[in-house]
Amino acid sequence: MMKIVKMNNGGAEEVQRLIEGRTNQDLSLYREQVLKIVENVRRTGDMAVREYTRRFDQVDISIENLLVKPTELEEACLRVEPEFMNSIQLAKEKIQRYHEAQFQTSWNLTEEDGVIMGQICRPLERVGVYIPGGSAAYPSSVLMTVIPAKVAGVKEVVMVTPPNRRGEINHYILAAAKVAGVDKIYKVGGAQAIAALAYGTGSIPKVDKIVGPGNIYVTLAKQMVYGQVDIDMIAGPSEILIVADESANSRYLTADLLSQAEHDPLAAAILITTSEKIAEEVQKEVIEQMKVLPRNEIVRQSLKNYGRIILVDNLDDGIELANRIAPEHLELAVKDPFKWLTRVKNAGAVFLGHFAPEPLGDYLAGPNHVLPTNGTARFFSPLSVRDYVKYLSFLSYSKEALAKVKDHVINLAEIEGLLGHANAIRVRFEDDERR
Amino acid sequence: MMKIVKMNNGGAEEVQRLIEGRTNQDLSLYREQVLKIVENVRRTGDMAVREYTRRFDQVDISIENLLVKPTELEEACLRVEPEFMNSIQLAKEKIQRYHEAQFQTSWNLTEEDGVIMGQICRPLERVGVYIPGGSAAYPSSVLMTVIPAKVAGVKEVVMVTPPNRRGEINHYILAAAKVAGVDKIYKVGGAQAIAALAYGTGSIPKVDKIVGPGNIYVTLAKQMVYGQVDIDMIAGPSEILIVADESANSRYLTADLLSQAEHDPLAAAILITTSEKIAEEVQKEVIEQMKVLPRNEIVRQSLKNYGRIILVDNLDDGIELANRIAPEHLELAVKDPFKWLTRVKNAGAVFLGHFAPEPLGDYLAGPNHVLPTNGTARFFSPLSVRDYVKYLSFLSYSKEALAKVKDHVINLAEIEGLLGHANAIRVRFEDDERR
Repeated sequence: MMKIVKMNNGGAEEVQRLIEGRTNQDLSLYREQVLKIVENVRRTGDMAVREYTRRFDQVDISIENLLVKPTELEEACLRVEPEFMNSIQLAKEKIQRYHEAQFQTSWNLTEEDGVIMGQICRPLERVGVYIPGGSAAYPSSVLMTVIPAKVAGVKEVVMVTPPNRRGEINHYILAAAKVAGVDKIYKVGGAQAIAALAYGTGSIPKVDKIVGPGNIYVTLAKQMVYGQVDIDMIAGPSEILIVADESANSRYLTADLLSQAEHDPLAAAILITTSEKIAEEVQKEVIEQMKVLPRNEIVRQSLKNYGRIILVDNLDDGIELANRIAPEHLELAVKDPFKWLTRVKNAGAVFLGHFAPEPLGDYLAGPNHVLPTNGTARFFSPLSVRDYVKYLSFLSYSKEALAKVKDHVINLAEIEGLLGHANAIRVRFEDDERR
Repeated sequence: MMKIVKMNNGGAEEVQRLIEGRTNQDLSLYREQVLKIVENVRRTGDMAVREYTRRFDQVDISIENLLVKPTELEEACLRVEPEFMNSIQLAKEKIQRYHEAQFQTSWNLTEEDGVIMGQICRPLERVGVYIPGGSAAYPSSVLMTVIPAKVAGVKEVVMVTPPNRRGEINHYILAAAKVAGVDKIYKVGGAQAIAALAYGTGSIPKVDKIVGPGNIYVTLAKQMVYGQVDIDMIAGPSEILIVADESANSRYLTADLLSQAEHDPLAAAILITTSEKIAEEVQKEVIEQMKVLPRNEIVRQSLKNYGRIILVDNLDDGIELANRIAPEHLELAVKDPFKWLTRVKNAGAVFLGHFAPEPLGDYLAGPNHVLPTNGTARFFSPLSVRDYVKYLSFLSYSKEALAKVKDHVINLAEIEGLLGHANAIRVRFEDDERR
């Protein structure tokens, strides 16, 4: 199932090609469809939302029923197991504690002569959170997207999620929304939900930013409305990359690889190891462990197409390859993981040692599970409190301070041919010259 | 030239409509054209770059001559006035000092039982900076986009800018690039430059992020490649909004309004004031001051279409309206500007009092002049060191710490139907149970 390849024998290039190749499909047909949906929702608002929900979710939801009612929320909390409420409550506390440490602050610099300048940090006012429905309806994603917004101080968090054919939302999703403190929930999904949040409709309010994972329609719609509102990132298929030395446990490694592979046939699970013994053990163990997984058809496809075990001569080579791949999840299953962490440049989240498996981070350790995928960890960051704030810069000068730099400003403005700019400085000293 | 309207008499709505209406043009034709350019550069690299440069910049630049040579840079520094070098050097120092205060740091949290988690901040490796050519070739933009990259620790800053018909780059731009420490400069502009940076060509390296202002082709191309690389923001037409009380000086206000209006016929210059006297004085003074400006045809168009003076009953109303408009530049020309600053939520850069005119910020006070425009200050921030870094989260657990939370993780994973996730936790405790 998992092919073993050598890094210095074309293995590195093969894996990079495989991973990047996952998004090489032609998106132009999707793009046309999504553009049409976005434009219709922009023009006709709730009417288009209702029509698309009827067409794609096969349920007719009247405008008055788009908004989830408080009774629906309470009912959901009663219907889920008490154990679920306990677990999600613990997860909330741990995620909140971690994200509070990210808090962004205002600052200022002062100079003599009355110069003060700096930055003011303000929470966004209203944020939209997209939560997928169906088989990928994960209550953990509700916590991960909503808690940092609340920590940032966002006034209103609006959630959208597609209804099932009876016009209902998954109880676990609703209960998680209640625990996380979502302000409003609307029963709408897909590109139409993104367009509704970006432009506003009669019943759904326009937001400042849209965050959260979604399918290809949701992702393309987010890219199209970017600029009209902000978005968190462009998500692609996800991956785990494990760098392991001989200190690692093959059964743990296998379980962690499979936990990524079960997500999606496009998910990639890569093991880089210095140990031939480990490589061979994992190759066998994969067959054993996947037998008992209910999603083993997804696992099989994912591992066959995008699962690889790469043998490296040393850990330096392994880390270098990890940096080239820039994985969403990176496990350092090695003897001295903190030493190697200092060399990691490109990764979404790094899991250190043998007892921080990736699923721990998915649910409740604290760090966010909305992570840059598909190599975008080169430039994107995990979802964070930073995503829910913006900055203003400010500047105050005294006349004396302005006098000291005025000739330089005038000089630069004139060189750029902007005499109005130069004049804005000059006019403040004209009276002095006349005297 | 500048119409006076009352806020509570439809003035607020009129101004919002005017400002937002500036971007209501149909972009589908541009979009098709840009998509074609981006795709061609992605497929055929340097060949397409050369062809588009020939077509749009009307100059044939061979692949070997795309990269600006060190001698061209040195020559440029000798050809510009020594005063320019002095001014740009001072600007560099002041901009650098401000951006050093933005430095982003790593942090961590520890818990008992060997839990360590946190974030690591890493500079992006290679960044592309777009600098427009022609009449909008501003050396100040070189400093504003490059200095924060250098402060962040970006290894390689690549600049692209369109050549003139003789295949040359403006000397001031080159001299500013030398002062700012740009690593490589390529003679290519437009959508083809953005595509070349996003995908890489034989001669132009692929970057992690593209920043900097540009025309509609550049902006659309940036939006299209977003996700392939990161981008700074989607820029639109710019604006100044001044809130003034009777303590303000009408000549200063006028000069500041005109300095924005001279940029672009789509630029908006808005004065909100509690004083009818000031409103009338500015209305007259505009006619006087614009006479001497070489760009007065641009000023006339901008003020006629998008320039307004809005009378408000009190400053509370004025600040509220400013927050609704979310201007790129906000001047608080009032008696107690710091008091009112605490109420400002949506603005790119705020200028306080009577001696911090907006052009001071454009050139050398320190804060960045690449700012969110066209109402996007609701969610975008000024360009900053933050734009040139990314974060990794990390997580380390001991077996004891994992044991404490394992049932909750397993519980949440099973509810989400992800048994492989649950198994990644279970497998780490199997041996204990067997014993």
